Amino acid sequence: MPEVRLEEVQRFMEDCLRGAGAPVAEAKAHAELLLHADVTGHYSHGLNRLELYINDIKSGATDPNAKPVILKESAATAWVDGGNALGATVGNFCMDVAIRKAKESGVGWVSAKGCNHFGMAGWWALKAERQGLIGMAFTNSSPIMVPTRSKERACGTNPVAMFAPAADGDSLGVDMASTTAAMGKIEVQIHKGESIPHGWALGPDGKTTSDAQLAFNTGHLLPLGGFEQTSGYKGFCLSAMIEVFCSGLSGANATHNIRGWALDSKEGPPNLGQCFAVINPECFAPGFAERVADCLRTYRNLQPVDPSLPVLAPGDKERINAEKTKSRGTIVYAQRQVDVSNAVAATVGVRPLQVVA
Amino acid sequence: MPEVRLEEVQRFMEDCLRGAGAPVAEAKAHAELLLHADVTGHYSHGLNRLELYINDIKSGATDPNAKPVILKESAATAWVDGGNALGATVGNFCMDVAIRKAKESGVGWVSAKGCNHFGMAGWWALKAERQGLIGMAFTNSSPIMVPTRSKERACGTNPVAMFAPAADGDSLGVDMASTTAAMGKIEVQIHKGESIPHGWALGPDGKTTSDAQLAFNTGHLLPLGGFEQTSGYKGFCLSAMIEVFCSGLSGANATHNIRGWALDSKEGPPNLGQCFAVINPECFAPGFAERVADCLRTYRNLQPVDPSLPVLAPGDKERINAEKTKSRGTIVYAQRQVDVSNAVAATVGVRPLQVVA
Repeated sequence: MPEVRLEEVQRFMEDCLRGAGAPVAEAKAHAELLLHADVTGHYSHGLNRLELYINDIKSGATDPNAKPVILKESAATAWVDGGNALGATVGNFCMDVAIRKAKESGVGWVSAKGCNHFGMAGWWALKAERQGLIGMAFTNSSPIMVPTRSKERACGTNPVAMFAPAADGDSLGVDMASTTAAMGKIEVQIHKGESIPHGWALGPDGKTTSDAQLAFNTGHLLPLGGFEQTSGYKGFCLSAMIEVFCSGLSGANATHNIRGWALDSKEGPPNLGQCFAVINPECFAPGFAERVADCLRTYRNLQPVDPSLPVLAPGDKERINAEKTKSRGTIVYAQRQVDVSNAVAATVGVRPLQVVA
Repeated sequence: MPEVRLEEVQRFMEDCLRGAGAPVAEAKAHAELLLHADVTGHYSHGLNRLELYINDIKSGATDPNAKPVILKESAATAWVDGGNALGATVGNFCMDVAIRKAKESGVGWVSAKGCNHFGMAGWWALKAERQGLIGMAFTNSSPIMVPTRSKERACGTNPVAMFAPAADGDSLGVDMASTTAAMGKIEVQIHKGESIPHGWALGPDGKTTSDAQLAFNTGHLLPLGGFEQTSGYKGFCLSAMIEVFCSGLSGANATHNIRGWALDSKEGPPNLGQCFAVINPECFAPGFAERVADCLRTYRNLQPVDPSLPVLAPGDKERINAEKTKSRGTIVYAQRQVDVSNAVAATVGVRPLQVVA
C-alpha cells in the first residue's frame, strides 16, 4: 500500500483546503487536525474526511473565511456563533476562550452553534492538556443512532473527549463515540470482507445484524451497551447528555434536525452544536498530575487475561500508534484512499500526493 | 409483600440515623436521599443501604457530626474536605456551593475528598435542576470493575449523573453507572432465580458467566459495552474520566486504593472522591428549556420496535416509578428487607417499620 511522508500529507491537505478557498492559517490548522487522526490511527477522521470538508466549502455549507464571535459571556462561560467556519477555526477559537477562562476563573465552558464537523474530538481536549489543564470536547452529529426500543434514528454518535495531564509528560485520554461502534469501523469490516459483532447495528427490520454491508446501508447504529438487556440505554443517555451541552446550550440544530450523513450533502450548513470545556487542576488539591500518573501505572500493570494483550490505559492505543507513525515518518494509506484524494485535489488545482518510492 | 407509607419510611430511616448519632437535620437530609431512591424504583440505593450507613457511623468510618469545609476556591471552583461526614451532608454542602458559583460565574465545579457513599448520584444533579440549572454529580467507589483485557479489578461503578430542566416542569435526567450493570441488578437476578446476560460479569476464571450467584461471589463487573469487541473499553474510559474528576482533583483515594465493598467494613473511612458541577443555561442561548423539551418529545414519539414497549426519554423510567409510588403513597418491600431493617433499628433503639395493615 502507498506510503506518504507526514509533511507531504500536511502539504497536500493544506493545499487542497487553500485551493478550495480557505485562508493559509485556517487551512494549516484544519490540516493539522486531520493529520493528527491519521497519526494516531483513526484513519476515518483524517485524509479520509478531506473530501467532505472540500465539498462543504464548495457547496457554501462551510464558509472558510468566517470568524467565530462571542455572543454572550460570563466569568466561566461563553456562547459562540461559529458562523459555519471550518471545524478547526471554531475549535481553536472556542478552546482558546475556554483555556483563558479556566486560567482566570477555574473553569471555562464554551458552547457554540453554527459549527461544522470538527474532526477528532480528542484533538480539542488535547489542546488544553498541553497547557497542564483538563480539556473536554463534545459535538452532536447527523442522526444515525437508534435509541433503545426505537425503530427510528434520532441521536448521533455524539462523542465525549477528555484529556488530563499526568506526571512526566504522560496523559490520560478519552475520546469515544456514544455508539458501540462508529460508522468507520463498519466500513473497515466491509473492506476486510468480515462480519460485525451483534450489538453494533440494526438491519432494516429493526433487528440486530452481523452483515456489515447491510448495517452500513441501513445506517442504524446501536448506542454503547448495545441492546436494552446489556444497558444500551446508557449509551443513549450519554448521547442525550452531550446533546444538552451542544445544541441545548448553544441553540444549534438538535441531532434529530441535522442533515443526513453524506460526503456531498446539498442540504446547506449542518449547524452542529459543539461544546468545549476546560478545568484548571491548580484550583484543587496539589499533586494532580502525580495522581493521574498513579492511575495510569495501575491500569497498565494489571494482570491481563491474555498475556499477549496487555491492559491499555485510556489513550495508550493512540499514543502507541502515534509513536510508531512518527518514528516511521510516513502514513500508509489504501490505494483507493490516495486515488480518491487525488481526484478531489484535481478539482481544486492541487498536485497529487507524492508517494514514497 | 409488606407495604410501608412514605412518611413512615422517612420517619424510620431518620430515627435510625439519629439513633446512631446523627444530628436531626443531617439524619433528615440523608433519609430524604434514600427515600428518593425507593420512590424512583432504585431499591438497591434506598432502605436497602441504611444498614451500611448505620454500620459506618458505628465503626467511626462516618462522622455524622462533621462539617465539610472549603479548602481552596476560585470564581468557578471549590476544593472541599468532606471530613467523612454523612453522604447527604457533603452532597448538600458541595451542591449548594456549586449552585452559588454557577449563579455568579456561569459554572460551579466542586471536588471533595473525605467522602462517604452519597446514595443515588442523580439526587444531587436534580438539586440543581430544581433551580433551573444543569446539575452533574460523579463519585468513585470500591474497586469492582475489571478494565478491558484485565483479570483484576481496579475501577469502580463510578456513576455519572446529569439533570437538565425542560419546559413545563419536565426534565432530562441521566444517572448511570459506568459498568454494564450495577451489583444490585445481579442481586435481583439471584432473588428471582434467573441467570444474567453475558457481558455483565466475569467468573473467577476471567471468562464471562451467566451464573448470577457466581458473578456476585466473584464481584468482577464488566464496563459498559461489555467485551472489547463491543467497545467495553469505553465504559472503562468513562470510569477513568470520572476518577479524574473525583480523586484526581480532590486528592481522595483513587478507586484502586478504596476499601473493598462490604456492608460492615472494618477498614475505616473509605475517603471517596466526589464531584459536583453546575452550569447556568442563562449564560447561553435563550430558549434552553424549550430545546430540551423538544428533544424529550422527539425521543418519546419515536416509533418503537415493540408497540408494547414505548421509547423512554432519559429519566422517564424514574419519573413513571415516582408518579406510581406517590399516588399509591406506599413502598412495597420484600419481607426480608423489612426484617433486616428492623434488626438494624433494634441495635439503635428505634421502633420497627410500621407496615400498612
